Amino acid sequence: MLSFLEACTIIENEILNFEINCEKVSIEDAINRTTAESLIADVDLPSFNNSAVDGIAVKYENGITNWKISDEISAGNFNDSEYKDSVEIMTGAKLPEIFDTVIPLEDYRMINDSAVLNENAKICKGMNVRYKASDAKVNEVIISKNTFLTARNISGAVSCGSSEINVYKKLIFGILATGDELIPINETPKDDKLRVSNNYGLSAAVTLIHQQSINFGFINDDYNKLKNKLKEMLKSECDILITTGGVSVGKYDYVKEIFSELGVDEIFWKVYIKPGKPIFFGKYENNGMSKLIFALPGNPVSSLVNFDVLVKPSILKKYSQPQPLKFKAILKNDIKKNDTKRHFVSGIIDVNKNEVITHSSQSSGNLAGFSKSNCLVEINEKTLNPKNGDIVECIMI
Amino acid sequence: MLSFLEACTIIENEILNFEINCEKVSIEDAINRTTAESLIADVDLPSFNNSAVDGIAVKYENGITNWKISDEISAGNFNDSEYKDSVEIMTGAKLPEIFDTVIPLEDYRMINDSAVLNENAKICKGMNVRYKASDAKVNEVIISKNTFLTARNISGAVSCGSSEINVYKKLIFGILATGDELIPINETPKDDKLRVSNNYGLSAAVTLIHQQSINFGFINDDYNKLKNKLKEMLKSECDILITTGGVSVGKYDYVKEIFSELGVDEIFWKVYIKPGKPIFFGKYENNGMSKLIFALPGNPVSSLVNFDVLVKPSILKKYSQPQPLKFKAILKNDIKKNDTKRHFVSGIIDVNKNEVITHSSQSSGNLAGFSKSNCLVEINEKTLNPKNGDIVECIMI
Repeated sequence: MLSFLEACTIIENEILNFEINCEKVSIEDAINRTTAESLIADVDLPSFNNSAVDGIAVKYENGITNWKISDEISAGNFNDSEYKDSVEIMTGAKLPEIFDTVIPLEDYRMINDSAVLNENAKICKGMNVRYKASDAKVNEVIISKNTFLTARNISGAVSCGSSEINVYKKLIFGILATGDELIPINETPKDDKLRVSNNYGLSAAVTLIHQQSINFGFINDDYNKLKNKLKEMLKSECDILITTGGVSVGKYDYVKEIFSELGVDEIFWKVYIKPGKPIFFGKYENNGMSKLIFALPGNPVSSLVNFDVLVKPSILKKYSQPQPLKFKAILKNDIKKNDTKRHFVSGIIDVNKNEVITHSSQSSGNLAGFSKSNCLVEINEKTLNPKNGDIVECIMI
Repeated sequence: MLSFLEACTIIENEILNFEINCEKVSIEDAINRTTAESLIADVDLPSFNNSAVDGIAVKYENGITNWKISDEISAGNFNDSEYKDSVEIMTGAKLPEIFDTVIPLEDYRMINDSAVLNENAKICKGMNVRYKASDAKVNEVIISKNTFLTARNISGAVSCGSSEINVYKKLIFGILATGDELIPINETPKDDKLRVSNNYGLSAAVTLIHQQSINFGFINDDYNKLKNKLKEMLKSECDILITTGGVSVGKYDYVKEIFSELGVDEIFWKVYIKPGKPIFFGKYENNGMSKLIFALPGNPVSSLVNFDVLVKPSILKKYSQPQPLKFKAILKNDIKKNDTKRHFVSGIIDVNKNEVITHSSQSSGNLAGFSKSNCLVEINEKTLNPKNGDIVECIMI
């Protein structure tokens, strides 16, 4: 059976090679998208020498401490006068060529029409001048291709004149839950039924990595209905299909069998991890179009944890999004682990104290406990039964 | 002049007391929203004893190592048979009352119609049973009021039957840039002009904290036009107004004066920080409606940094969103700081190495450098000229 790291490598390889198209989006919609082109300064930035402060623009001469002031320049109101005297100048205003230094407001006082340097003020030539092209030269790359855009990038893009940006299209995830136990969210569970939460949870997880999803609802363990639904999903516009349930070795675990009948190639089945051992990964190619397929376990916690540790990291990498932070922390309870699988145990980490507590009920169905957690404790294959006081690796979720 | 911490306290107080309404959103739209109600389990979770694995359900008796198997139960297909022999059982299937233990597939082999325990298998009474209500009892709070919803909360909400959730409305930010130097994004800057980036950058920053914004464009330093625009903004549906530029002590810095004429109460003007000393904070109350007003400096880097350090933390707190992580790191260059303001200097931190580099050009206009940074180095009032090798505090941005 594949190890966790082997599975990650295979998935990453497929996802990084998965072809995605580009689209132009307006600068208003570009936040959280990833550039498919470099953005280049079309002018020097700044494109003129200007003042970093409100003050007076002067020609620096050693020992001179007062200046006649006879004009003023504010940002955006430069005129090409020949200045004989010094001038008042506002932040961002263009500095006339004749001046080389700006003395800030707090360093002088006005006496009649002259500025007189304060006794304690220290000035030097060139102070408070922002030089032309000091941020970037014309044709310099301001934002590289494959940048995941933050607010400061958006401002940077504007300075390149980019009112539209070429970005990678979002991946479209199709999500289907399977299982005879499932009932809709607005029914009250009776007997051995369970509300279907996987579609909603996974769809939210897809939103959090800035991709799109289509909810295909849920299907009970009826071979024909399931086959029709999976056929529909394979024909859809989705790039990645995620199913939950029906992929283990139980008698009604039809998902893998039907995918095979429908022409999906198995890349792997089963990974030596907990939760989520029965995960299936496949690929469907038809008419030059590809889809990647993840069949995750049906348990709501397992499917979300599997998405987080197996699917998400590669998507983040493909879109140059930052990976979840990892911390080492002191475990504040014992964890039972008698096997050599890699375990992912949900917990609550206090980053300031560097301490993590995992939940008492670690049954993979514990959605209530999982809902309150903020990290997964990752326990390697060789580690058995980590104890209170041990240092463990935590992944923020 | 107010210190940074004094200003933060005042802003936080106003924002936490700012009244926001609630709205119902469907579970599909609830990700990244904040609950205005507690979500409560309407049934025990799980609502029946069930199997944690695929295997056989047995009544445990010490020393017994083989069991006649005469039926099977899959998830969602429980029937009220009276079981005489043991049964096969699938993950999630309801455990009949007569059984107390589930032995997993890998621990036994089938010989004819009997399951025979493997030699090395260790079994114990109660193993692999998920007990009714072990996750949560009926009426237990699954998600508290004031929870910022993640993907795992969404699944948790579904288990409470919440197809709609009562959440706090998003704040609406109105954003206006001012300055005679500003030109639209699709023009090429000539002479002393500059493309207007503040609206786009701040609007993106608002999106990142999951609030809404309205872009009011930009206005040159024309008193009457500016007054009309600010009047329009005060009449709008916005909760918070942000202007950039025109708030310092320059001759064309009309913003503060006009706000005062229009009935905005000054809460403070100027904070002893860099960048962004001239920040103005005010409040407008009219017909029982309130608006908070931030007039930020015009410089694009300053306005974004001021938003990040002064505005954002209180909004995150109000909506129970996690605060940006802070790290201590080793500074890998010198920083010039000759005054007792609190400084925020953009830099690139390597979290694994615990090292941070700040940019060489720290003129507050350096959008190109700022665009590449991932943190702000926060240098306290008393610290002067931190050196290569010093430990500094970094805020992730």
